[in-house]
Amino acid sequence: MKVTLSWTLRAVSLAALMTAGAAIAQDKEPVSPLPAPKAVNPAAAELGKKLFFDPRLSKSGFISCNSCHNLSMGGSDNLKTSIGHNWQQGPINSPTVLNSNLNLAQFWDGRAKDLKEQAGGPIANPGEMAFTHELAIETLRSIPGYVAEFKQVFKTDKLTIDEVTRAIAAFEETLVTPNSRFDQWLDGDKTALTKDELAGYKLFKDSGCVACHNGPNFGGNSFQKMGVVQAYKTASTAQGRVDVTGKDADRLNFKVPTLRNIELTYPYFHDGAAETMTQAVDLMGRLQLGREFTTDENVKIVAFLKTLTGQQPQIALPILPPSSDKTPKPRPFN
Amino acid sequence: MKVTLSWTLRAVSLAALMTAGAAIAQDKEPVSPLPAPKAVNPAAAELGKKLFFDPRLSKSGFISCNSCHNLSMGGSDNLKTSIGHNWQQGPINSPTVLNSNLNLAQFWDGRAKDLKEQAGGPIANPGEMAFTHELAIETLRSIPGYVAEFKQVFKTDKLTIDEVTRAIAAFEETLVTPNSRFDQWLDGDKTALTKDELAGYKLFKDSGCVACHNGPNFGGNSFQKMGVVQAYKTASTAQGRVDVTGKDADRLNFKVPTLRNIELTYPYFHDGAAETMTQAVDLMGRLQLGREFTTDENVKIVAFLKTLTGQQPQIALPILPPSSDKTPKPRPFN
Repeated sequence: MKVTLSWTLRAVSLAALMTAGAAIAQDKEPVSPLPAPKAVNPAAAELGKKLFFDPRLSKSGFISCNSCHNLSMGGSDNLKTSIGHNWQQGPINSPTVLNSNLNLAQFWDGRAKDLKEQAGGPIANPGEMAFTHELAIETLRSIPGYVAEFKQVFKTDKLTIDEVTRAIAAFEETLVTPNSRFDQWLDGDKTALTKDELAGYKLFKDSGCVACHNGPNFGGNSFQKMGVVQAYKTASTAQGRVDVTGKDADRLNFKVPTLRNIELTYPYFHDGAAETMTQAVDLMGRLQLGREFTTDENVKIVAFLKTLTGQQPQIALPILPPSSDKTPKPRPFN
Repeated sequence: MKVTLSWTLRAVSLAALMTAGAAIAQDKEPVSPLPAPKAVNPAAAELGKKLFFDPRLSKSGFISCNSCHNLSMGGSDNLKTSIGHNWQQGPINSPTVLNSNLNLAQFWDGRAKDLKEQAGGPIANPGEMAFTHELAIETLRSIPGYVAEFKQVFKTDKLTIDEVTRAIAAFEETLVTPNSRFDQWLDGDKTALTKDELAGYKLFKDSGCVACHNGPNFGGNSFQKMGVVQAYKTASTAQGRVDVTGKDADRLNFKVPTLRNIELTYPYFHDGAAETMTQAVDLMGRLQLGREFTTDENVKIVAFLKTLTGQQPQIALPILPPSSDKTPKPRPFN
């Protein structure tokens, strides 16, 4: 009887293994495929898309969320550090907005707890969009097309920064990039990666990269010190997590960036100092792991990293509702 | 026999009249519906769309064609005058790219004969994208995705400014906005306009606006002096057509702007000095026609002008091919 039961259980387990091959494969890995995007109200996301592309949320009328989180370019601006109002040089590299809902917090130092909180930041940052929430709201309230759409989405006449940032966050939650070649491999398609790419993935795991870059977003789920084994030399004045916690131990601790779509989100690091994936892999090895990757190892890791490019969001460019005669005029030059 | 023939002809004519009602209606008007967009090579237009949205055609890596001809905002930037590299204040209001293929020439002073010639201008203008054609081409040639796409579109390995501007022009030729309410009315739907809008159109014709704003694009087909009856007072130093012809008679002659989508393309005039349609109509009456429109007349003309908003182009936001390690780095700050 005992033997029979054991065999029965074995048979059941085997069947489970066979039908759930993909799940089993990913269970063994320290990373996982992207989850499906959180279900959001499509009307809120559509409104949020308009706001994301609308430069009238800036003092100049020239800078929108999409200026620095460009959805044509991996949700980043591909600049070392960003350009703000009056061509100010930003202090930090623009992180991608893609899959950002998976991050434990927003901004490099995690000072915003979620996308909604983040969305209000750049609008009012004097070095970025240089507006105020009050003027942004006055602007939106003067635009009949927006007034009607906010009412339709939120079922209220209230149009405040709360509704604005909720809508932008709803849009951003849709910005998920599934089905990278690596995800296909994780899901069981063993032909999705080449031998070199797989060798790169093995190096990525065996060398310790995966200690920080793990989970569904290959990062974004912890703060880590930049420069663990060797101190990081940079002209950047960004201090990282210490600015939020006040704890000296958090100096130069930054949110670990996602590696998804890394091929599109150059340059790298919080200061944008690594121009290429080759440089980033080399420096990460030295600074964080105390390891010098050989050229061959570096090439393989980079080949693996390029398999993390997912399907980019299909965005129909929004047509923005026109200003009215009462809309405050943009002030780019004063 | 003669009578019979005459009646036969009359019957034929009547049938023609009945089946071609729309054509007859528009024949009586000094304006006409938008023609269908010129057939272009869809692959060339798709490549051109990428280039139109690509800030890597600028020195900074931040400014694209779409920055000042924003397809979310009527193909304009809705600024008095545009913002260029290093936040330079441009000398002139950005004209809409929508329906621009119908214009007799490009730029306010007509210095480019067509869209292809225009497209090369801002890239190399130190006050706009501040790049050079040589660097733009070096950049594009370093991007494998572009190299492959140019080859596919143009069936040659040649990748020069000629192919670049041909592709951008091909995309721009697709940016046509048909089926405005006014076009529906022209096409025979007599319910498409309200009584006030029709009264505004009658005023537009009877007052002489139509002398310059005529044809399928309500303008764009002649150069005219700004300030015919009264001299135009402006801080702008733009001299207009004289810069092209060298003839003093062409001083302050500018290409008549299209009125299509005028609701979206504020502010108005070559210097962007008229912030609202109300102001623009009032000033045009005084300066060009020696006429003071009453408030009621102005309201009706503005109501008519708002019927010229057509269907905006449906644009799927392009995903740009990533730079390679060899791509020259953007230089926003030096």
